[in-house]
Amino acid sequence: MKKEFLKKIIATPGEKHQVSDFSANRTGKMSRDEANILLRENVEKLAELQDKLYAQDQYAILAVFQGMDGAGKDGTIKNVMSGINPHGCQVFSFKQPSSEDLDHDYLWRISKCLPERGRIGIFNRSHYEDVLVTKVHPEILLKNKLPDIRTEKDITEKFWKKRYKQINNFEEYLVENGIIVIKFFLNVSQAEQKKRFISRLKEDAKNWKFSSSDFEESLHWDKYMKVYSDVLSYTSTPHAPWHVIPADNKWFMRYLVGQIICDKVAALKPDYPTVTPQLNEELEKYKELLLKESKTKKQEQD
Amino acid sequence: MKKEFLKKIIATPGEKHQVSDFSANRTGKMSRDEANILLRENVEKLAELQDKLYAQDQYAILAVFQGMDGAGKDGTIKNVMSGINPHGCQVFSFKQPSSEDLDHDYLWRISKCLPERGRIGIFNRSHYEDVLVTKVHPEILLKNKLPDIRTEKDITEKFWKKRYKQINNFEEYLVENGIIVIKFFLNVSQAEQKKRFISRLKEDAKNWKFSSSDFEESLHWDKYMKVYSDVLSYTSTPHAPWHVIPADNKWFMRYLVGQIICDKVAALKPDYPTVTPQLNEELEKYKELLLKESKTKKQEQD
Repeated sequence: MKKEFLKKIIATPGEKHQVSDFSANRTGKMSRDEANILLRENVEKLAELQDKLYAQDQYAILAVFQGMDGAGKDGTIKNVMSGINPHGCQVFSFKQPSSEDLDHDYLWRISKCLPERGRIGIFNRSHYEDVLVTKVHPEILLKNKLPDIRTEKDITEKFWKKRYKQINNFEEYLVENGIIVIKFFLNVSQAEQKKRFISRLKEDAKNWKFSSSDFEESLHWDKYMKVYSDVLSYTSTPHAPWHVIPADNKWFMRYLVGQIICDKVAALKPDYPTVTPQLNEELEKYKELLLKESKTKKQEQD
Repeated sequence: MKKEFLKKIIATPGEKHQVSDFSANRTGKMSRDEANILLRENVEKLAELQDKLYAQDQYAILAVFQGMDGAGKDGTIKNVMSGINPHGCQVFSFKQPSSEDLDHDYLWRISKCLPERGRIGIFNRSHYEDVLVTKVHPEILLKNKLPDIRTEKDITEKFWKKRYKQINNFEEYLVENGIIVIKFFLNVSQAEQKKRFISRLKEDAKNWKFSSSDFEESLHWDKYMKVYSDVLSYTSTPHAPWHVIPADNKWFMRYLVGQIICDKVAALKPDYPTVTPQLNEELEKYKELLLKESKTKKQEQD
């Protein structure tokens, strides 16, 4: 994949963006077969990189997935991450907050699930729901019982700007502390979403995936595009930019997400820790002791 | 207590401070008896306020206690908070981080313990340990395996400034989300600390409180005063200023901390939620139903 293409899908920090400025069906002149081969290669490469990341025990990766229902969050996570040792990877889905969550600040449930050093953490939806679904349905925000937010009239653009800043500060802190944040907005077109909903209803194996609430939400399409545009405009930062992934072709989306994660992890140059001469001496000593012990045991047995 | 006095003990945000600029033994012209009476009054008042805070379910209080060993953190928390319904108050002590803690960013263990709406959370030591004990003993920081921090030489003043900023951003976020942060630095003099250590060794009932590591740490007194001065200079903010409490007289310290917490909670004007006409109608309906039911039961029994 050309660097130019990879640049194009990043929402440039500090600029205003519209979701419609980004393509939902580009494939970067790549064929389906080519993409599938590269995906498989990248999955293997990622497994190896993750092993080193774990041994090095210094950085963590936090991959955030956002997108409309049917954009392909679950499928992408499954296909890109399935080669990895599950010990080194944790996936968390953020659905409706529990009453315990609502009793805390909105980043509380997020912070609890942050990845440990050496791991890859995956967020299927995230803290961004607090500036997406709540911005489309401001009545939800009233449940949070925030100071000075008593009616929907109190929820001004200033309030949202403050929240974007809180999220930016939070992510900056994470990156500064070695948790690398990679954000993906899976950009599906409305036509493709409709097609996927219909296939969920038609195919028995996909039936369980259809939910009437997804359909209800899809009726607010324009509002969602507006709030996603705001998210791209105000929360794409130098430390954690948004990648807007063309999601109409699943095979291309999966390849692209895998490629970006691979590149980011590789850039950290993870490697097995080098053994110091001192440690090496100790290891030699233990090896000798163990060999001696097993020799004695063998003689006893004989 | 005069407002002027209360102003004097606040480390003015944006200014440089030295711990030695603040008094450790002032008592604001108050007598011991007077202070004890006011403390008892405030404890009662706080219990009442907390009950309303809980019913209102909108704000939380986070009281952070920092100070040298022997400054009186445990005793102050015990004396000021003992009148409160434990259901509405949670105390967390932050000792040495566990290996799970160390595998995460340093605010991870802090965030998990944040108070729920309507509660008073007490932190006995806090995230400030990460800019205090670690600044006195930089070798501790190396355990955190932070990016770009490989040797003690990498731990520059720039690194600490960044960390102060992270903490300020974190606390600003909390306040903006209804978690009011009140910070107390219990300012004990070195002479008084020595006296308290000796009494811990002399009195059987206090023996358990003495630990040799406290003594070891007290040998670094000057270094600690330097890092506490930095904390007062860089993390006293308009949203969460530091209160520097004269701690040489326990009775005065306890009164003062109680007074400040009381004032802060009272300023939130917590109150039992008013019943709306609609809810009132419903309540009336249930009352009728309950009365009717108990009447029927009584008739059956007769």
